[in-house]
Amino acid sequence: MCELFALSSDRLTNATFSLGVFGERGGSLGPHKDGWGIAFKEGRDFRLIKEAAPASGSACLRFVESQEFRSEIMLAHIRLASVPRVDSYTNTHPFTRELYGACHVFAHNGDMPGILSDSRFIPTWNFPLGATDSEWAFCALMDRLRHALLPYEVLNLEKKLPAIQHWANELAQTGTANFLLSDSEYLYAHCSTRLFYIARQCAAPHESFSSTTLRVALHPQEEGGQHVSLIATQPLTTNEAWLALPPGEVVVFHHGRRIF
Amino acid sequence: MCELFALSSDRLTNATFSLGVFGERGGSLGPHKDGWGIAFKEGRDFRLIKEAAPASGSACLRFVESQEFRSEIMLAHIRLASVPRVDSYTNTHPFTRELYGACHVFAHNGDMPGILSDSRFIPTWNFPLGATDSEWAFCALMDRLRHALLPYEVLNLEKKLPAIQHWANELAQTGTANFLLSDSEYLYAHCSTRLFYIARQCAAPHESFSSTTLRVALHPQEEGGQHVSLIATQPLTTNEAWLALPPGEVVVFHHGRRIF
Repeated sequence: MCELFALSSDRLTNATFSLGVFGERGGSLGPHKDGWGIAFKEGRDFRLIKEAAPASGSACLRFVESQEFRSEIMLAHIRLASVPRVDSYTNTHPFTRELYGACHVFAHNGDMPGILSDSRFIPTWNFPLGATDSEWAFCALMDRLRHALLPYEVLNLEKKLPAIQHWANELAQTGTANFLLSDSEYLYAHCSTRLFYIARQCAAPHESFSSTTLRVALHPQEEGGQHVSLIATQPLTTNEAWLALPPGEVVVFHHGRRIF
Repeated sequence: MCELFALSSDRLTNATFSLGVFGERGGSLGPHKDGWGIAFKEGRDFRLIKEAAPASGSACLRFVESQEFRSEIMLAHIRLASVPRVDSYTNTHPFTRELYGACHVFAHNGDMPGILSDSRFIPTWNFPLGATDSEWAFCALMDRLRHALLPYEVLNLEKKLPAIQHWANELAQTGTANFLLSDSEYLYAHCSTRLFYIARQCAAPHESFSSTTLRVALHPQEEGGQHVSLIATQPLTTNEAWLALPPGEVVVFHHGRRIF
């Protein structure tokens, strides 16, 4: 099992504080001791930082906290390994692939037994670098999108979402598919068993969300209100109504709002 | 113009000290103020760390120095931007793409005017995320290798090297193509105007190479001799005979030795 966390915002936002506290779950508080990773949108690319070591006590994660990486999309994962090589960088989420000039990033929570022998998910163009069922599934999605879309349609949601939804449906048949996905424009989330979100407008420029397990401090570059959505394996604040994502449905966030 | 640096070794080696001193050229000593990047081989993947900010004074580079990233292949680049968006992460080298389950990483030095309108380099499967001629050229190589090789041949040097050499020849016709390339198994280097290397066996387990501008401290995990090759835009030590790479020829290093 793993913990997922994502942020979508309509402004460049420094949300690194969230990582620090979220990171504490990845060792001292939770059972997630086998690696963590964070992806920050940078143009059509993602800055990917990951480590095959517990988030708790990680010098690298502390360094990330100390930096002011401002982004509109952020996606994080803390992992308890379920495959043989527990300590490998290549098996650590998130995973990335470029498609038609847009970097795609994927993080997954759950086991999908049998996916490696399922003919619907055999790699044809994108091949895994590591040994996880998650990266295998992601490569299959990248293959399908390559076939379903023309290069200029890579961010055309009307064409793209049905292909992602169809893939997610088949994925869910192989096991548990809680996942986060982004193409540097949209943030996609899919719940099989457990994934929550909150979408709201922040009035203050430096609003923070806190609980005993996570603190998200938003520091947008500009003053004024901000639309932001947060997605997580567990609700992160107790004084607000986090919504469970409807199981089986790929939900899309854009500029801090849920749009599908 | 940019500075290139690469290391190939037959052992997992901590060579982060080299980055720190090499990094000093990227701001205070050299004219390279617009970004730096380092890739460390991790299995079939690369840990990629890059920043669209001067290497000199970089907290991120200092952090990298403080870590013990041990690898058999390391590839670094310090860049002076020659394209409009000087400060973008996506325009910062090295660039990476996965091909047939092996991450490929590429860093380039020189200008290649006209490559973006050259029909021999039009992207078909791999598309640039940024706006550099270098990433454009790299995508074209990835496309060609995809067509030239079957998936299981991705690390077959006999099949692969001719395709890389052919591409390098065409690339050199468009401008200056000093580059470093790796597929997580081999390290390839090509010189148009300026690239030097040294290949040797280190007797001591903690040997270091030093000059006024760079120090490479090798800390292999095991005791005993070590084969190592270093490649750089400028010779890094004055007491050893660095060899100029033959212009126009793709030279291959493997486990610290020059093999082609």
